[in-house]
Amino acid sequence: MEPRPAAPGPCPGDSRGAEQAAAASSLHPAEAQPRRRAPAVAAVLPAGGSGERMGVPTPKQFCPILERPLISYTLQALERVCWIKDIVVAVTGENMKAMKCIIQKYQHQRISLVEAGVTRHRSIFNGLKALAEDQPDSKLSKPEVVIIHDAVRPFVEEDVLLKVVTAAKEHGAAGAIRPLVSTVISPSADGCLDHSLERARHRASEMPQAFLFDVIYEAYQQCSDYDLEFGTECLQLALKYGHINAKLVEGSPDLWKVTYKRDLYAAESIIKERISQHICIVMDTKEDENHVGHHLEELLKNELNHVKVTSGALCPTSRDLEQIILEQCYNYVCVNVMSSDFEETRTLLNMLEESNLSILYPIVVISVYFLDYKSVPFDEKMESLIQIREYAKEVKKRNILLSGLLIYFPQDEQKLQASLRQGVTIIATLIKERNSGLVGQLLVA
Amino acid sequence: MEPRPAAPGPCPGDSRGAEQAAAASSLHPAEAQPRRRAPAVAAVLPAGGSGERMGVPTPKQFCPILERPLISYTLQALERVCWIKDIVVAVTGENMKAMKCIIQKYQHQRISLVEAGVTRHRSIFNGLKALAEDQPDSKLSKPEVVIIHDAVRPFVEEDVLLKVVTAAKEHGAAGAIRPLVSTVISPSADGCLDHSLERARHRASEMPQAFLFDVIYEAYQQCSDYDLEFGTECLQLALKYGHINAKLVEGSPDLWKVTYKRDLYAAESIIKERISQHICIVMDTKEDENHVGHHLEELLKNELNHVKVTSGALCPTSRDLEQIILEQCYNYVCVNVMSSDFEETRTLLNMLEESNLSILYPIVVISVYFLDYKSVPFDEKMESLIQIREYAKEVKKRNILLSGLLIYFPQDEQKLQASLRQGVTIIATLIKERNSGLVGQLLVA
Repeated sequence: MEPRPAAPGPCPGDSRGAEQAAAASSLHPAEAQPRRRAPAVAAVLPAGGSGERMGVPTPKQFCPILERPLISYTLQALERVCWIKDIVVAVTGENMKAMKCIIQKYQHQRISLVEAGVTRHRSIFNGLKALAEDQPDSKLSKPEVVIIHDAVRPFVEEDVLLKVVTAAKEHGAAGAIRPLVSTVISPSADGCLDHSLERARHRASEMPQAFLFDVIYEAYQQCSDYDLEFGTECLQLALKYGHINAKLVEGSPDLWKVTYKRDLYAAESIIKERISQHICIVMDTKEDENHVGHHLEELLKNELNHVKVTSGALCPTSRDLEQIILEQCYNYVCVNVMSSDFEETRTLLNMLEESNLSILYPIVVISVYFLDYKSVPFDEKMESLIQIREYAKEVKKRNILLSGLLIYFPQDEQKLQASLRQGVTIIATLIKERNSGLVGQLLVA
Repeated sequence: MEPRPAAPGPCPGDSRGAEQAAAASSLHPAEAQPRRRAPAVAAVLPAGGSGERMGVPTPKQFCPILERPLISYTLQALERVCWIKDIVVAVTGENMKAMKCIIQKYQHQRISLVEAGVTRHRSIFNGLKALAEDQPDSKLSKPEVVIIHDAVRPFVEEDVLLKVVTAAKEHGAAGAIRPLVSTVISPSADGCLDHSLERARHRASEMPQAFLFDVIYEAYQQCSDYDLEFGTECLQLALKYGHINAKLVEGSPDLWKVTYKRDLYAAESIIKERISQHICIVMDTKEDENHVGHHLEELLKNELNHVKVTSGALCPTSRDLEQIILEQCYNYVCVNVMSSDFEETRTLLNMLEESNLSILYPIVVISVYFLDYKSVPFDEKMESLIQIREYAKEVKKRNILLSGLLIYFPQDEQKLQASLRQGVTIIATLIKERNSGLVGQLLVA
């Protein structure tokens, strides 16, 4: 699994993607050939399904995960791949407006919408027609290779996209496959077992698939109404009408299709896990080596394996916090030692709001205070509580989840370690759950 | 999905299960026949897998969900079915001790352990041998029908078990099936598509399956080493060696097999959802109709659709709270109005501890206080906070997750409604997430 989520909006400025795509355009990438132009690649995403298997009224591609529709995650996964020039999405007339809102709200790029057909094949065909040159008034141009993917497979990686595109260039058609999880059987007419298939000799055909555009477009133009109504497999059309045996590419488990309600649960957990892999400790100063923020940083590193913990300072001269935001860190622990007010947290919140980072994922911000509350009157701190609640309500509107954390800070070193560990547990819980129901709370460690 | 989780330990005393099993023993249940004896049914659970697909070192059947190993959920699902007399689990030698601990810790009943073989078929065969009559010193007796299930399908319902057993009585063999999610294809030797299978003509073979014991035992005795090494399908053995075309029974989506890490996430979410379907508001008295607990009850009912909200009183003469605990409610909101101390919460916690209810699932207890904290000095309440932390640490050891909730209680009716709604949001979050990282906190609404 890729630890870092995809960048929002257009591709970052590095040229790696383009280079890889150029490599993909070479028929024999292993050979030392001069680099050729990158192939023009477009993607078609059928999204006209009704999601009846999900058992919920909303079609599954529009079901929310962390309040964002599933299809937006899939679009994000495709649009971060620079060398995919156009993404054509087929949606039903009744969902067209909702889809336009999604594109605007989440700032998706390079998306064109076409009307879905009544079956998956008809929706794909409509997408291909929009890409074909003979469409008047179209901003789209005919690609050399077209990727076909599902709106409900949000975790597709650039790696497998590149593999199917490369294989399609060479073979005319290619598709991702996975081992079968269950044995496949064939029932007889009376509902009994006729025969079972040897599991090792069969594979599940997954997405993405890729085709030379002319191959798949001609297949769709030639295919029968029966194919369009009842067919489920684009590779089969390329075989039947283009006589092309598609190259099969082993995919990762991430390619799975969100089909049932349990898959939505799984997707939410995976997304939460991915955006929890980087925590930034924000300190009022980084100069002081004994800063308690450094202790917290060490403990977080020890307790949370596989999580990248960095620290940034809020000094105006320091650029590193901006860099961390640019790297799409979605978790901030703001350690207040010098001051007991909200100035620093407010500065951080302003930076986060300006970055637009929270458009795609909720950001967790935990404002940490240290206090020997067993000897200091608590009433003063109620001020903080009320302030946190007000700020939290405000920034919640911009998808930032703010809570406060009061860490008991005794003189006794052992007790301090115990309360710091308790603090780390609370921080880990807030970041992992990312639940808006607890924003504005002042938790105590 | 079944809203209420299965009872821990042995079956409750009602006779519905036995009656249904008796009906199952009739070859033609639709006809009005005199009721016959229930067939002797046992289950075999191969649990020797290494879980390599999961990508984690622990075999998947032993991966924890809410701190309890997955296989314990599956055992619970089988043992709540009264008419399954014996459950034989095949585990590898190295996991034998861990498995015995699981059985003891979660008080599983009617379980026998046998050593797993190196393949799934060999493990099942070992389980069948233990059930066959020719085993000396065995407490097990040969059943008429044997169910074969997977340790990693924890959500199997009595309904489908009854269906496969009934069909096995009639046909000799039966198994649950599901529609295919992906098209199945057959690759050629060079990794290209040879042909794709028509999805509508094939099904995924799932579990549970059931067999007349003699049919499947003889099949295993006759089958070849190749079958035992590379076969994946018991129904196929019944066909090949017993010439029996198994009856195929449509299963629900719940039958899916926990295979990948994402499936563990999904299973955890499903289990959390199931045990969150019943919330009990515990009041110091139910007599007072204006009791603020009733307001909270109403709001919870309105906000949480599909959740059963009941109330119970802690009066010593009232039996209803004991009844609610017997009904396996895993969520308690203890509303303290008359007193501001912990007496009531403590009484509830004692009842819960005595019930042993938390052996199988963590119980959430939220101790709610009402206070106009904007006018009352807060210091007094810090006493409560410290008390809650101490109690929470104590009961956490017994799998009870205690938190406190302070609800702002102003004179103004509109403001009261707002803080009650905020309280409901916090209660819903604590129950839904069921995370031990936040126990002992005093949250404020």
